[in-house]
Amino acid sequence: MSSISVVPAPVSLTERAGDPFRLDAASAIHARGEAAAVGDYLAGLLRPRTGFALPVGSDEVDAAGIRLTIEPDSADPDGYTLLSGPDGVTITAASAAGLFHGVQTLRQLFPAPIEAPLAGDTDVVGVDWAVPAVHITDAPRFAYRGAMLDVARNVFSVADVKRYIDAIALLKLNHLHLHLSDDQGWRLQIDSWPRLTEIGGSTSVLGGGGFFTKADYAEIVEYAAGRFVTIVPEIDLPGHTNAALASYAELNIGGVATSTYRGIEVGMSTVDTTAEATWRFVDDVVRELAEMTPGPYLHLGGDESLTLSAEDFARFVARASRVGAASGKTVIGWHEMGQSGDLAPGTIGQYWDYLVPRADAAAHTLSFVEQGGSVILSPADVSYLDIHYPDSDRLGQDWADGPTSVEQAYSWDPAAIVPGLAEEAVLGVEAAIWTETMLGMGDVEFMAFPRIVAVAEIAWSPAPFGTPGAAPDAAERSFAEFSPRLTAFAERLDALGIRYHRTAELAWR
Amino acid sequence: MSSISVVPAPVSLTERAGDPFRLDAASAIHARGEAAAVGDYLAGLLRPRTGFALPVGSDEVDAAGIRLTIEPDSADPDGYTLLSGPDGVTITAASAAGLFHGVQTLRQLFPAPIEAPLAGDTDVVGVDWAVPAVHITDAPRFAYRGAMLDVARNVFSVADVKRYIDAIALLKLNHLHLHLSDDQGWRLQIDSWPRLTEIGGSTSVLGGGGFFTKADYAEIVEYAAGRFVTIVPEIDLPGHTNAALASYAELNIGGVATSTYRGIEVGMSTVDTTAEATWRFVDDVVRELAEMTPGPYLHLGGDESLTLSAEDFARFVARASRVGAASGKTVIGWHEMGQSGDLAPGTIGQYWDYLVPRADAAAHTLSFVEQGGSVILSPADVSYLDIHYPDSDRLGQDWADGPTSVEQAYSWDPAAIVPGLAEEAVLGVEAAIWTETMLGMGDVEFMAFPRIVAVAEIAWSPAPFGTPGAAPDAAERSFAEFSPRLTAFAERLDALGIRYHRTAELAWR
Repeated sequence: MSSISVVPAPVSLTERAGDPFRLDAASAIHARGEAAAVGDYLAGLLRPRTGFALPVGSDEVDAAGIRLTIEPDSADPDGYTLLSGPDGVTITAASAAGLFHGVQTLRQLFPAPIEAPLAGDTDVVGVDWAVPAVHITDAPRFAYRGAMLDVARNVFSVADVKRYIDAIALLKLNHLHLHLSDDQGWRLQIDSWPRLTEIGGSTSVLGGGGFFTKADYAEIVEYAAGRFVTIVPEIDLPGHTNAALASYAELNIGGVATSTYRGIEVGMSTVDTTAEATWRFVDDVVRELAEMTPGPYLHLGGDESLTLSAEDFARFVARASRVGAASGKTVIGWHEMGQSGDLAPGTIGQYWDYLVPRADAAAHTLSFVEQGGSVILSPADVSYLDIHYPDSDRLGQDWADGPTSVEQAYSWDPAAIVPGLAEEAVLGVEAAIWTETMLGMGDVEFMAFPRIVAVAEIAWSPAPFGTPGAAPDAAERSFAEFSPRLTAFAERLDALGIRYHRTAELAWR
Repeated sequence: MSSISVVPAPVSLTERAGDPFRLDAASAIHARGEAAAVGDYLAGLLRPRTGFALPVGSDEVDAAGIRLTIEPDSADPDGYTLLSGPDGVTITAASAAGLFHGVQTLRQLFPAPIEAPLAGDTDVVGVDWAVPAVHITDAPRFAYRGAMLDVARNVFSVADVKRYIDAIALLKLNHLHLHLSDDQGWRLQIDSWPRLTEIGGSTSVLGGGGFFTKADYAEIVEYAAGRFVTIVPEIDLPGHTNAALASYAELNIGGVATSTYRGIEVGMSTVDTTAEATWRFVDDVVRELAEMTPGPYLHLGGDESLTLSAEDFARFVARASRVGAASGKTVIGWHEMGQSGDLAPGTIGQYWDYLVPRADAAAHTLSFVEQGGSVILSPADVSYLDIHYPDSDRLGQDWADGPTSVEQAYSWDPAAIVPGLAEEAVLGVEAAIWTETMLGMGDVEFMAFPRIVAVAEIAWSPAPFGTPGAAPDAAERSFAEFSPRLTAFAERLDALGIRYHRTAELAWR
């Protein structure tokens, strides 16, 4: 009986006849050139628990082991094949990113204790580090597979963000969207506007201040890059701006600075969209942000600007998107930005309304496509992971048609939400965590896990039967089939020490 | 009806006839010389919420307000008097520390919203910032009022530690004991033994690595000093040492390095107590630690060394205590160190057995007094705050005769635990948090609050009726009297954003 279990589900996984691969003291990792960095990463995962030397080297080394090979071709750069048997494991991909995703799958083929000792277990002798004989071909459905962390409402350290990067990388998520500014905090050093962090970074919903220096941000970007995660920074405009408004009087309508804010209401703040100072601010912030961000995207917010007229809002986001695009980046905005028909061409819209769109949300979303952009789906009622669990309201919030169960987080399709939105226009999916109620990564992980596993599978695994993008032989997306793979994965979360909520709706091991 | 409520309970609090003091836009804070820093601190607390200018200056300023005055005399340096009435508030103390403690009381005399906006409350206009007319005289029962944070089992940032310092300072706690090394991690940079952090700092129970650089530690020490909190660093020896043993083979019996450890068992590790390398290690670590620690104490551990013979253990701790004392510091050790009759004179013992001592715990504790030292009480069954709550086992552990209720955390006396231990030999009290199960300050605060309020009152407030040190007219320690003061204080925790567990045993507001 197979105990093979992988999340997200690969495109195809076939068990082969024959013996497993057994990692032992004589094993080596064969990886050269571009593959060597992934080889080093894999060795770093496997050495601590096994105690094996696992040298990383070229193909010329004779020892059996794990082989990581890049074969550039027309295949999806994030995809890979994995072949395991008694002679070894071979992962082949068109890029280092594909090898990295293959390694995340390989981890799940080892016994769970590979990740770390379980509490109380000090005996490393005698564990059979066996990888079953399988043939896997795999590639993601969507290119943008994201997680968003709100580092503005409360303060998180560089170490916290790195920890989250490692966790999402397990699930082949490849973008981390950092919500860096809001009413309650401005969390990124901007040299040309220093009070943004001196004042705007001085408080948070649950207490003290903090922010990322440019060195911190560079450290995060580098760490993410090593895990093939692209950092997507967001500076929310023109609303969700009280931290900036408390820092600089000239950004305010009426020219008087606000106070710092530690509540959790939304919608009441706006920059003065017609002030010359505001456009100097936008220019400078975008310039500095683009300089420090190697990734292709800048997120400029655009949500819940409830005090501006529709015309003023549309005019603002159009101009802001053009400032962003002029920096060389592709701008992302929340779907409300689609109210403007004059966005920088190619601007990407992030949909955060519900599975059944309300009011103008669908029309605003299609506006991005009409203007040459694509769409990221983050429906709040299933992929906002700060929404309460059905069996726990200790943390999180209760709007967005909550609570949100694991089954609900799994039971939706990105291409089946906005009428008229074709699969080709869907860039991908993002699971968001808003942190008004959270203090530290224990809280974030409790809310993220296990529901983010569901969203990650929606982002990666093949379109299920019944969706426009599905293959003719596609399977249905079945929570009953997913659940045991999720609870098996939880054993690895235990070993890794990643916090998760053992929801009553699942049969935990 | 009085709504005056202060924790810890002051020595005496008398309500006066007449109007309260009302803080307003014209108020000033009068503080000069040594008092000025406390004046600045107080202004920093009061300005954000009130929006008042609250200039801090000399007595010559006419405006009514809050006056902080140092009157050096023979009174307890940590004590203060507070007199409030329509003309202002005057806090008088023999030292800046005493003024600081008076300010912590003053905060609790203001309406709770002084601490910060409650969620959703953006309206600063119209709050009556009134301090009732009272006369308070106050001084602590014990000089050493501590909290211990285990930063070795899991990783906490400098910001986390600062946050905890601010929280404990509210309760007039004045020592923060940092448990910096254990089997699962070594969290302090030691220049002469760099692998301690490279390897020993690379993992933790719940995941990744981390450690404090010397700059981090200096930042913590400075922040604590500004809140009149002394940092007490602990390097645990000879047991609880696996992180060091994984870093340097020469410290191990048999000369082979261990692996890093992420479990939660205790007692199995020991340095090679007879190796020359070990004593070089102890010398170097103590030297560097003493150099970076302005406070008077170095804690050298000594607990749960279960694999050494009694002789080897006694010999080790005797020599280690002398190395510590030679650095100019006073050594603190867990009570097991008292097995040696040859400690450095004046070595302080920290008792962590139960309210009813088991086995040799009492004898070992008295040994410190016999050798010229004093005792800190941290009975595990009431002051280890990582032990489960009766109504929550989500975090924490379940030994130490747990669970531990708030009432249990309040219902004990430091001078009534060890037979033969006189009040004069009790240096003080410490509430400990062991963090095997905790990730971030949300978890730590959930376990610390509200029970640490109980321990802080035991550390500060007068000896209750029935204890040897009690005044003739002392009141009994009454949980029924304490509970409403605790739930009133929780409103301030809410305003500050400090996490706490709303235990079922209290009637929360």
